[in-house]
Amino acid sequence: MRTIIAVDIGGTHMRAASYAPDKLKPIKQNKISTLASEPGGLERLVRTIEEVWPNDDSVDAIGLGSPGPLDPHTGYLLAPPNNPEWHNFPLGPSVAKHFGVKTYLDNDANLAGLAEYRFGAGQGHHDVLYITVSTGIGGGVIIEDRLLQGYHGLAAELGHIIIDPNGPLCSCGYKGHLESFSSGPAIVKYVLGELEAGSKSSLHPPDTGKQDVNLTARDVAEAAQKGDALAIKAYSRAGKYLGIGVASFLHAFDPSIVIFGGGVSQVGNLLFDSFHVSLKKHVFHPRYLEGLVITKAELGDDAGLLGARALAELKLKI
Amino acid sequence: MRTIIAVDIGGTHMRAASYAPDKLKPIKQNKISTLASEPGGLERLVRTIEEVWPNDDSVDAIGLGSPGPLDPHTGYLLAPPNNPEWHNFPLGPSVAKHFGVKTYLDNDANLAGLAEYRFGAGQGHHDVLYITVSTGIGGGVIIEDRLLQGYHGLAAELGHIIIDPNGPLCSCGYKGHLESFSSGPAIVKYVLGELEAGSKSSLHPPDTGKQDVNLTARDVAEAAQKGDALAIKAYSRAGKYLGIGVASFLHAFDPSIVIFGGGVSQVGNLLFDSFHVSLKKHVFHPRYLEGLVITKAELGDDAGLLGARALAELKLKI
Repeated sequence: MRTIIAVDIGGTHMRAASYAPDKLKPIKQNKISTLASEPGGLERLVRTIEEVWPNDDSVDAIGLGSPGPLDPHTGYLLAPPNNPEWHNFPLGPSVAKHFGVKTYLDNDANLAGLAEYRFGAGQGHHDVLYITVSTGIGGGVIIEDRLLQGYHGLAAELGHIIIDPNGPLCSCGYKGHLESFSSGPAIVKYVLGELEAGSKSSLHPPDTGKQDVNLTARDVAEAAQKGDALAIKAYSRAGKYLGIGVASFLHAFDPSIVIFGGGVSQVGNLLFDSFHVSLKKHVFHPRYLEGLVITKAELGDDAGLLGARALAELKLKI
Repeated sequence: MRTIIAVDIGGTHMRAASYAPDKLKPIKQNKISTLASEPGGLERLVRTIEEVWPNDDSVDAIGLGSPGPLDPHTGYLLAPPNNPEWHNFPLGPSVAKHFGVKTYLDNDANLAGLAEYRFGAGQGHHDVLYITVSTGIGGGVIIEDRLLQGYHGLAAELGHIIIDPNGPLCSCGYKGHLESFSSGPAIVKYVLGELEAGSKSSLHPPDTGKQDVNLTARDVAEAAQKGDALAIKAYSRAGKYLGIGVASFLHAFDPSIVIFGGGVSQVGNLLFDSFHVSLKKHVFHPRYLEGLVITKAELGDDAGLLGARALAELKLKI
């Protein structure tokens, strides 16, 4: 029996699972704290994998998912946030050497997209656009049943497409990226800016005169659901720019399905009413929308593991 | 011997050629006027192909290139400009039926990109971004040795990526597309707007008080080469926005080579000095530029024919 080991290295937890072919449920799974800023990361990763290793010699490959930037062609992590030990680190080759099996690495957004294509909302589609809208905005693109990786392994960085060269500052330090308009922090930043400019809002009790600096996108969503005009406007604006970005992605990739993952995309109409209006307004030929499915991700927290598994299976052509 | 017939249907001329495998020089070639607005287009196309048909039965396939929009999956032209007879017209199927061989169709920009990848500046590269800057802006994208076509066959419409949602009107009727900033007509439109606003320029002799409505991008280039400040600024602005667009394309596709075709891209430094500054400024991770080749198209007028040939060979997996 062929077994695939999948690992999802998240900011908080490191998860591993072993999978038999054609079964969605793992044979074994394991979850520990990532402790990214502490030394010994590779040893923790190795132990996590050992916990799910089958008793026989059936493992064909290991798939690894990690936040980027990374190089899927060499298996090197380049500069993962909060983990100085793993800067320019040969994660893939180290794991491959330790366990003596082929090991494949890619970033979390690409793998979530691959997972949705293979096991989730994108099943049956050959051209898939996956977008996660969360603290950041990431993308995963499948073209004719293949994962778009790019020459340096840095393709599909859809959060960093320039939407307006004079737009707000992005977390990456550049201006006007999709992420700087439509991510969770972008929504909060917009609200804080408007409050500072004197907008009235339930998020800014007039009697204290102090803005809530710990405001989250979830707080804004809750205020919006209670009818707060500024909060509603903040999500509506994020949806508008998301529609502009996705219009450009349709013109570039022309997929048959667009799948939204990530926490911010869970708010529903608050974001997607204006998104749909904006998308329709900005797509320059109606044919792009013919038969186009726009839907939510289905795999939730399992997307990382299943994507790492799908990557290994794709590379092995299982 | 296997023979491929290639046809390039341009706005002015219709060209056909027959090719033996592994030879760049055609066995026979033929060129007639397209006469797009006159009836009998299919008959003219058939005769053009017959002229280059070999004496034996060696033809394996026919490749057709035409301005879009079209559907490469079905071989239908959707709405070619200036040709009402060919709206929603089964060009590929009609040619296939007449000659009894497999026939493949795609748009001119995709095929020029494919030609450069296979026979021109992109040889040896697997991930190619081709951009033609001319009356319009078009794209052709090769990903891991495959032509990006998309679900509806409308991928890689790189001239219609939104650069600034509040930007100028594009020829397609939508706002702020790359084409509305950096195409030939966009350069002219910018100059005319500045002249109207009172800018001094050799393109606008103050004694006549009339702007030259027949101004072309070539006129602007000539004025710029003679030192005209407005003309220089117009090309510099086009290059700046081209750099913004290509930065987004790198983030999306991460190619190993960017190839520029089209008349406007022939002006050299006038456009590319500001392009390179802008590209470097807007690429959000230096790794995208590592080893990236940025160069000019090599095939000139033959790109259309060679692209149609390459498409047929690609589909036949020759």
